[in-house]
Amino acid sequence: MVLDYIKKYKEKTRKSSSLFAKSLKLHVNGVSHNIRYYAPYPFVVKSSSGKNLVDVDDNNYTDYWMGHWSLILGHAPSKVKDSLRKQIEKGWMYGTVNEQTILLSELIAKAVPVAEKIRYVTSGTEATMYAVRLARSVTGKKIIAKIDGGWHGYTSDLLKSVNWPFTESESSGVVNEEEIVSIPYNDLEKSVEILKKHSKDLAGVIIEPVLGGGGCIPAESDYLKGIQEFCKKNDSLFILDEIVTGFRFRYGCLYPTMKLDPDIVTLGKIVGGGMAIGVMCGKKEIMEYSNTTGKKKSERSYVGGGTFSANPSSMTTGYSTLSVLKNGKAIYSKINDLGDYARKELSKSFDGKVIVTGKGSLFMTHFLKNEITKIVNAAQASMCDVKALHDYHFKMIAHDGIFFLPGKLGAISNAHSKEDIKKMVLASEKF
Amino acid sequence: MVLDYIKKYKEKTRKSSSLFAKSLKLHVNGVSHNIRYYAPYPFVVKSSSGKNLVDVDDNNYTDYWMGHWSLILGHAPSKVKDSLRKQIEKGWMYGTVNEQTILLSELIAKAVPVAEKIRYVTSGTEATMYAVRLARSVTGKKIIAKIDGGWHGYTSDLLKSVNWPFTESESSGVVNEEEIVSIPYNDLEKSVEILKKHSKDLAGVIIEPVLGGGGCIPAESDYLKGIQEFCKKNDSLFILDEIVTGFRFRYGCLYPTMKLDPDIVTLGKIVGGGMAIGVMCGKKEIMEYSNTTGKKKSERSYVGGGTFSANPSSMTTGYSTLSVLKNGKAIYSKINDLGDYARKELSKSFDGKVIVTGKGSLFMTHFLKNEITKIVNAAQASMCDVKALHDYHFKMIAHDGIFFLPGKLGAISNAHSKEDIKKMVLASEKF
Repeated sequence: MVLDYIKKYKEKTRKSSSLFAKSLKLHVNGVSHNIRYYAPYPFVVKSSSGKNLVDVDDNNYTDYWMGHWSLILGHAPSKVKDSLRKQIEKGWMYGTVNEQTILLSELIAKAVPVAEKIRYVTSGTEATMYAVRLARSVTGKKIIAKIDGGWHGYTSDLLKSVNWPFTESESSGVVNEEEIVSIPYNDLEKSVEILKKHSKDLAGVIIEPVLGGGGCIPAESDYLKGIQEFCKKNDSLFILDEIVTGFRFRYGCLYPTMKLDPDIVTLGKIVGGGMAIGVMCGKKEIMEYSNTTGKKKSERSYVGGGTFSANPSSMTTGYSTLSVLKNGKAIYSKINDLGDYARKELSKSFDGKVIVTGKGSLFMTHFLKNEITKIVNAAQASMCDVKALHDYHFKMIAHDGIFFLPGKLGAISNAHSKEDIKKMVLASEKF
Repeated sequence: MVLDYIKKYKEKTRKSSSLFAKSLKLHVNGVSHNIRYYAPYPFVVKSSSGKNLVDVDDNNYTDYWMGHWSLILGHAPSKVKDSLRKQIEKGWMYGTVNEQTILLSELIAKAVPVAEKIRYVTSGTEATMYAVRLARSVTGKKIIAKIDGGWHGYTSDLLKSVNWPFTESESSGVVNEEEIVSIPYNDLEKSVEILKKHSKDLAGVIIEPVLGGGGCIPAESDYLKGIQEFCKKNDSLFILDEIVTGFRFRYGCLYPTMKLDPDIVTLGKIVGGGMAIGVMCGKKEIMEYSNTTGKKKSERSYVGGGTFSANPSSMTTGYSTLSVLKNGKAIYSKINDLGDYARKELSKSFDGKVIVTGKGSLFMTHFLKNEITKIVNAAQASMCDVKALHDYHFKMIAHDGIFFLPGKLGAISNAHSKEDIKKMVLASEKF
């Protein structure tokens, strides 16, 4: 059956095929992000709009990848587009302080209580790198703990225990794995046991409140509270990576709904409205370690920004996106409901053979295998039938005009309707 | 005299003053890039066009900062703007393979011989991080050598010996300084002496062919050749960071003009046309270490991209910028000549009390002090009168409507005219 879909896919993506052949000559594996490749070749996009991606062969796909889950309003939403269009007339890059940055920060500071001070950087990878550096500066300690299957971008400081098996190095050429410790998600007892061994040198713990790349798995509130408590007791920083979850489920971060009190929060994706952004924010007394004025080099935490940090385009798309979401209670309740509906209906479709994890508008279908009966961590997600998920997503690309990046979680945007979800469920039933 | 200028500046930047007060509440030191702050406060930009920045008080500045030196065609040049405008109608973020990336890569691959394979990332900081990781993966060695005063972004892997004194740590919270070794620029004998001590574990050497942040100082061709020879003999990679210099002096990189043969080259700034970009490119057999398909985790070099890598906006602005430059021999000869003119006239103006370093359209005025008589490395640049340079730049901001980021090098764009340079020289004479 899979061969049929590959044949069908090849037939309808001839232009993509020849363009990707060019891309393969120019780029390693034809891509500029490892996960964007899938066999036999990814289709090549020529335009996007609302819920849709259109490829160079004029195939239309209802998109659940949504720009690495950053496009909560869909592709090129009109209000954001209008503001960006206006900004471009005034330039897209100043390299200086600008008003757009202040406007966006005022929104973030109001919506995210811990954002007493905000620093914009260019990517999520940079934001988590700085969060780690800051935690080490503030505490004078070295070890950073992360979750088995936690994904915080490609920074050298957190490149460990990302993919199964978590005990094996993620990459050659990484020199500081000894300073990274890994703990199992949603298992407080074991996590604390491991953290205790390092408590004297533990600079901080960094956690996604919903594991993204690790399988779209929400953290249990008590787990996060327990880790936070351990951090506070041991003078380690509690860092929440909300790059995926910030402004995804509500106007603000996820952590206040669990009554958590993180020291540093990282943001990205949605708050940039689809333009390159990373954000590190946190409590004033902590963030001020990165104030370079008047500090000796070896005392300061050297936190940068970069050529493109806080540029007027990303600040504008971020600001106009949050402006829509600010008055968007209806948006959140719509997409959260659609997520609940998708989880429920997909579970039914697959007749008990899957677990659909997720929260709100994020969902992921895990095909059960290896006697897995629940999924509360990345190890369980990794033991599911990953190939079946890939085939299922590929079948929808080839046959149904529905795009999930094969093997990855889906994100519902405000551009999706219940009708779309129903079609996707129907396509799943036929798999 | 300086106090007069501060008074004058405050009078003409009242709106900036009150906006920056807001910014100070929201951001550490009011900025999202340490270097963008200067006393008493930086002006706040509201628009840009051609050679000009306009602040919120409607002051106009002839800009020599030019978006961290990335805007070689000036602010918002019409051909690039047109292409970006069109792209925005189709979306600014796909999260997938797209044709714009292939178009840009075809240009880069033709213009930069070593770019047999190209990987786009989101910032220069990311590009150099990956270059270091790749060098370690390819060689199986750990040590990376960099230049005293070399600046490759804020990556933890290269955060050493950036600012004077080069022997002091750049930051607290950095854990892997032992894997970084620093060598003096343009001093082959001493550099090789240091490299020899580490040759068995030397993964690579990374060098800017013109020191940017370190003082706008060109490398001597024999120096680079000598370092390259050492690398080849000792199975270490020779990495050139051309983020500043790539496409700055000619259509392509600087290294071919010196008949060099680097293994990896990093690009950024100009090739992104003002949108967020970083590029790592290099020889095929080296770049292929980052091909993750079919490799064990611990064997691959885990080189990413990121949510925003190769997005259609930055690929479009990059492509249209390079398209203009491709047929832009006149542009390069114009701005290179203007640079020569600026260096010559500024030297005259200051009557032997300065050395104006640089190359082509990049220039920097060093006020002599501490018996410095030549500037071929960052140590000499650091021993010059840095305060005088700052005051000189600030005077031009306050008095002449000319903007250099205080203390930093200047970049001439195609939007500048000889008349502009003359005005700037005249303003300098009056300092």
